[in-house]
Amino acid sequence: MPLNQDAVGKVGQPVERSWTQRDVLLYALGVGAGAEDPTGAELEFTTENSHDVELAVLPTFPVLLGAGWGGVDVGTFNPAMLVHGEQGITLHGTLPTAGKVSATATVTGIYDKGSGGVVAGETTAVDPATGETLFTSRMSAFIRGEGGFGGPRGPATEPPVIPERAPDDGVTYTTRTDQALLYRLSGDRNPLHSDPWFAAQAGFERPILHGLCTYGFTGRALLHTVCDSDPTRFGSMDARFSKPVMPGDTLTVQMWRLEDDRTVLFRTQNQAGDTVIDRGVFTVR
Amino acid sequence: MPLNQDAVGKVGQPVERSWTQRDVLLYALGVGAGAEDPTGAELEFTTENSHDVELAVLPTFPVLLGAGWGGVDVGTFNPAMLVHGEQGITLHGTLPTAGKVSATATVTGIYDKGSGGVVAGETTAVDPATGETLFTSRMSAFIRGEGGFGGPRGPATEPPVIPERAPDDGVTYTTRTDQALLYRLSGDRNPLHSDPWFAAQAGFERPILHGLCTYGFTGRALLHTVCDSDPTRFGSMDARFSKPVMPGDTLTVQMWRLEDDRTVLFRTQNQAGDTVIDRGVFTVR
Repeated sequence: MPLNQDAVGKVGQPVERSWTQRDVLLYALGVGAGAEDPTGAELEFTTENSHDVELAVLPTFPVLLGAGWGGVDVGTFNPAMLVHGEQGITLHGTLPTAGKVSATATVTGIYDKGSGGVVAGETTAVDPATGETLFTSRMSAFIRGEGGFGGPRGPATEPPVIPERAPDDGVTYTTRTDQALLYRLSGDRNPLHSDPWFAAQAGFERPILHGLCTYGFTGRALLHTVCDSDPTRFGSMDARFSKPVMPGDTLTVQMWRLEDDRTVLFRTQNQAGDTVIDRGVFTVR
Repeated sequence: MPLNQDAVGKVGQPVERSWTQRDVLLYALGVGAGAEDPTGAELEFTTENSHDVELAVLPTFPVLLGAGWGGVDVGTFNPAMLVHGEQGITLHGTLPTAGKVSATATVTGIYDKGSGGVVAGETTAVDPATGETLFTSRMSAFIRGEGGFGGPRGPATEPPVIPERAPDDGVTYTTRTDQALLYRLSGDRNPLHSDPWFAAQAGFERPILHGLCTYGFTGRALLHTVCDSDPTRFGSMDARFSKPVMPGDTLTVQMWRLEDDRTVLFRTQNQAGDTVIDRGVFTVR
């Protein structure tokens, strides 16, 4: 059965997603917080009991709480053929360091790219106690081999136009060779990220890093550079995954500040200068 | 109130200690498993879904499940003055990758060392379903400033006599600068290991690594060198903490195999050649 075009626009059942303080701390370490300067500026993301420091949730943490396609029948396919395409998040409120949200997903698009299909979804997460929307998140998956079903190609979105100047800011972080072993404890246990045998079956020389882990490193760079490390100023972050990252790779996040004073375009490159995250658009809240 | 000499010999109420697979994986990463060779020999401790690999519990994991003094009233003192003195563990069965034990602690000694007091306890942990003893563990704490109460000085144990030859084996691991931030998620959130302010109050230049983290690194070295990486051959491991370790330190575990073919004496040194764990005695099962 191919991808199910009728799923577009369908809304899934709300699901409850909860998290603990330990989840928040573990995620922060998984995306490299504290690794560069363990006694410095990131204690507010990695510890809950440091003097004069209040624990805060890294603004990219809610990507773990997305509801995907909300159980809507988007068709059947081999999950091993799925790769993460795009990810976006918009923060409306401040996430508590432990709590729960009611997350509702909508299938926003199913596209036929020829060599594969794309399924896109959006999650709206509300505080179950107050009904306040805490965040919305967007993701799309590319499913290799599932194109050619005669669906629409999807909107021809133009990539954001990066100014013709050197980046205004650049931040470099080095991932660890065992980064994926740690990041996977935040939930995505796909062996593509840890098992050399499985990675070889999927055509990779060795296990690749989770796209969302690279996304988290990139979000930290934006937070510290553009938001003065203040999570409440982190508005939205959208980007496309353009190339696999290997654990141990060095990531450089390049940023261009636009004239509206609230939009920053960004991309992330590895040590070879290949772009691994592109079409990045960040807004200050 | 000084240390309570009458506590010696008292047995605490059994407590249930449970753990999940995630706890097991997190502990393994916390003591450095997978860091040296992430696609190699330690996947059996760091992943639960690798091809032809079965998850096993690192043999030092049960130190997390000890019951301390079992709630027995050993006296009152400032917990900030407590430092871990000695730790031992004996494995009788194979720990499941998730489960629970019923743990019962006995206060085995309260000693007056002049400058401080020592409280020693032993935990026996049984499978609540079968009654089978899975492990016993031993620990002692040195409490600065709580000596001079007129108690016994304690047994004058002679340190094991290390043969007068170079070590038969040596394994070197490097801890990370953020090692304690990760290890603390296994349960010991004492800010001495993460908060520069708190560490300074306690007289340290910066936060120090958990003694039990160094113990775990040392246990991995023994497991891989003496037990051919087979946890079922890990019998017992006793040692004394002799000097603080700083996150980022390099640890070299030196081992001497005795003639009985089952006892290994060991010690752990930092990059300066200072001994941080001494009086180590390991037995093969």
